Amino acid sequence: MNFSIIVYILGWVLRFQGFFMIFPLITSVIYQEHEGIWFFICIVGCVLAGTLMTRKRPKNNMFYAREGFVTVALSWVLLSLTGALPFTLSGEIPSYIDALFEIISGFTTTGSSILRDVEAMSHGMLFWRSFSHWVGGMGVLVFILAILPLAGGQIMYLMRTESPGPTFGKLVPKLQQSAMMLYIIYFVMTLIQIVLLLIGKMPLFDALCTAFGTAGTGGFGIKADCMGSYSTYLQAVTTIFMFLFGVNFNFYFLIVIRQIKGAFRMEEVRWYFIIFAAAVLGITINLTAESGNLLYNFHHAAFTVSSVMTTTGFSTVDFNLWPGFSRTILVIVMVIGACAGSTGGGIKVSRCIIYIKSAARELSTLIHPRSVKVLKSDGKPIERTVIRSVSVFLVCYLCIFTVSVLLVSLDGFDLVTNFTAVAATFNNIGPGLEMVGPAGNFSMFSPLSKFVLMFDMLAGRLEIFPMLLLFTPSTWRRH
Amino acid sequence: MNFSIIVYILGWVLRFQGFFMIFPLITSVIYQEHEGIWFFICIVGCVLAGTLMTRKRPKNNMFYAREGFVTVALSWVLLSLTGALPFTLSGEIPSYIDALFEIISGFTTTGSSILRDVEAMSHGMLFWRSFSHWVGGMGVLVFILAILPLAGGQIMYLMRTESPGPTFGKLVPKLQQSAMMLYIIYFVMTLIQIVLLLIGKMPLFDALCTAFGTAGTGGFGIKADCMGSYSTYLQAVTTIFMFLFGVNFNFYFLIVIRQIKGAFRMEEVRWYFIIFAAAVLGITINLTAESGNLLYNFHHAAFTVSSVMTTTGFSTVDFNLWPGFSRTILVIVMVIGACAGSTGGGIKVSRCIIYIKSAARELSTLIHPRSVKVLKSDGKPIERTVIRSVSVFLVCYLCIFTVSVLLVSLDGFDLVTNFTAVAATFNNIGPGLEMVGPAGNFSMFSPLSKFVLMFDMLAGRLEIFPMLLLFTPSTWRRH
Repeated sequence: MNFSIIVYILGWVLRFQGFFMIFPLITSVIYQEHEGIWFFICIVGCVLAGTLMTRKRPKNNMFYAREGFVTVALSWVLLSLTGALPFTLSGEIPSYIDALFEIISGFTTTGSSILRDVEAMSHGMLFWRSFSHWVGGMGVLVFILAILPLAGGQIMYLMRTESPGPTFGKLVPKLQQSAMMLYIIYFVMTLIQIVLLLIGKMPLFDALCTAFGTAGTGGFGIKADCMGSYSTYLQAVTTIFMFLFGVNFNFYFLIVIRQIKGAFRMEEVRWYFIIFAAAVLGITINLTAESGNLLYNFHHAAFTVSSVMTTTGFSTVDFNLWPGFSRTILVIVMVIGACAGSTGGGIKVSRCIIYIKSAARELSTLIHPRSVKVLKSDGKPIERTVIRSVSVFLVCYLCIFTVSVLLVSLDGFDLVTNFTAVAATFNNIGPGLEMVGPAGNFSMFSPLSKFVLMFDMLAGRLEIFPMLLLFTPSTWRRH
Repeated sequence: MNFSIIVYILGWVLRFQGFFMIFPLITSVIYQEHEGIWFFICIVGCVLAGTLMTRKRPKNNMFYAREGFVTVALSWVLLSLTGALPFTLSGEIPSYIDALFEIISGFTTTGSSILRDVEAMSHGMLFWRSFSHWVGGMGVLVFILAILPLAGGQIMYLMRTESPGPTFGKLVPKLQQSAMMLYIIYFVMTLIQIVLLLIGKMPLFDALCTAFGTAGTGGFGIKADCMGSYSTYLQAVTTIFMFLFGVNFNFYFLIVIRQIKGAFRMEEVRWYFIIFAAAVLGITINLTAESGNLLYNFHHAAFTVSSVMTTTGFSTVDFNLWPGFSRTILVIVMVIGACAGSTGGGIKVSRCIIYIKSAARELSTLIHPRSVKVLKSDGKPIERTVIRSVSVFLVCYLCIFTVSVLLVSLDGFDLVTNFTAVAATFNNIGPGLEMVGPAGNFSMFSPLSKFVLMFDMLAGRLEIFPMLLLFTPSTWRRH
């Protein structure tokens, strides 16, 4: 294990953390809030420590998969530990465990909150909370390395780990340029949403926070009823952008480099749309059968499915009160999640496609034992290693899920609360059902449960393996 | 597809169905119940139709995996369709859908019931219900073929399909003798349990029905409170035998042929015991923390875990009222299930071992990409095809589970009821939680939901693939 380079990169992470906190500091200054002082102190601390750690570049440039996993996991832990400080120092979230839960929920774009009264927070803190979604959405490390003068091998290992989804697609060559391109797309799309929200007369502060939450598919709201009190236009804009930020970014990449045919041939994006449409249709029919207005139900079904499927977690209505069939659909799209290579969480549509394709192939092998079929995606064969790691992902996913539900159930709440609390954090969605539904929050859990859910959020965002490896002894063994 | 041989085997299935019904007929005669006449009519009908279908032996002896899957699936459907007749003809279960649900639940050793008042049934019908567990537990087809003069290839394909679990172990050579040996072990163990129950002063009728339910890991009770009113001794005997019938029968086979060391070296049996002990311990502690008596709690925890883990489904207490942690443990052991090659259901301990081992291997490949590890079980490498089909099993399992919950949720009951109703039928357990808990039943579901749950019971008992292939067009295509 090459510790010197890990420390070096972690130092840069701290320096960037200091940079990120400048924005909430500015917000505090504009709103003349005293809490800004704590951001200033944290900035100074982070930059000082970061500069100390990056004082000299490491001579040993060895950087492999192992280092990649550990660096990514530790960076996110470090971002969370320091990011939680302003909340506790200012006294707005007195318990450091709660503050940690809140900022991990932010960076991992989960959006689960322990706050009972979000409107009591200062503007600076609310901005920091929402901004952490935007920072965490596309990943911090890849961003840092895209602009740092380090060798290409490192960025590859880190990018593979930090980007959501099973395959890495067409972006492998010219990694640094591709990474920059993705961030530019991300930035421009966020900007367009802000402008559209401002056109709909949303205040600037609200527009910024909403756009950050949408772009990162995070879902921290700044109002008690989340998006409920905004106009239909503003909700519709948010619906569309939540959906768009759940699309595989390779799709936009291909459009930007004018391969529009190739973009629309992407199997994952097609299935993402089909699942989305089916879920909205099912819920709309189910809701309308219960009570009246088709258009009203369609509007809220589309908003909620976008929100849950992309794992954003915004809400306009309390979907915990919806009938069982609709709630079941929500739990299913919760677990499926958005596209790989988007800011959304969940198992990812492309993994589900691979699961179903390999199951169908196996079934046909049972009847025709001598036939040989090759699994294809976008018309190209899927590598055997991808299929294998994808099926192991499923097993790890189920194991972590099971153990988490078991530990959380020690608190003695009902099964639906426990089950959906884990589903909502592990898939980085935000709200679950029953006590952790859109109208509830996570504050009643014990510290043990909160730590379990924090682990789940990080494991969900980093696609399980980095966090698992952090706790595997053989990762740390010299050999 | 060789239809003539399928019809021939189905004819034999019908003749045996007639034979099986002799036992409830005798019961009816002993208790002087008029309902016996319907058994007599069904016997005559089955034997006549069966004799007609087996009039001449098919010339074409071609029999492959495809025929095997279809024959097994159709045999079980046929057994259910005819087995449900006495219930409806006698008027004791007026709706044929309900009667079908009840007998499928019997043959698949599920034990879920639509009966609101089990004590209102006649002795003959109760006997038939419980006897169907015993018949279904070890599988009907293998039994028929073990004594029928047919070629060995057929029995292999059928045995592979009808026996639960991923691998077939050491029993492949000398199939017919091995099959007979398994049935003898099954018969003798049932006999021992009956004797032990009689020693505890249980009435003969109760002892027979209880032993059938235990041996098949079925779980139909003949009393409203199931096993609650029996003495502690009788409950303890049942606990032990439920556990024993959940052990891989290869274990007993090895003991009988005096390879005792080999038997105790079986990895699956060891893990089965460890999971069982951990679950009992966890629940005992959890219950004792809530209310007093350690020994009392241990007794009922052991009974319930044996019952749920082996997917028997007997109950002494209403575990639906237990605290959340205990209920979560029950849901987990429900899904894991018993050993492969036992009469129990669920995913099976050996499959879980393979999942976890392959996940652990993949994790270590992530850190040390160049290392090659071979998955081993009982010290021998696991074949690649087994690993692959095991992981496809998981995907099919999850897909069927998801679609079932979605369809059942159309009835509008709560999420825990829907989820555990599917879990309980698909894993062939019997009772779930909430409305389908030990004190509830399945009568309130709509016909659609009942058909879904019937499919799940059959798919669970036959390990998914035969039922899936029955509905796959390419199975029926000539080529």
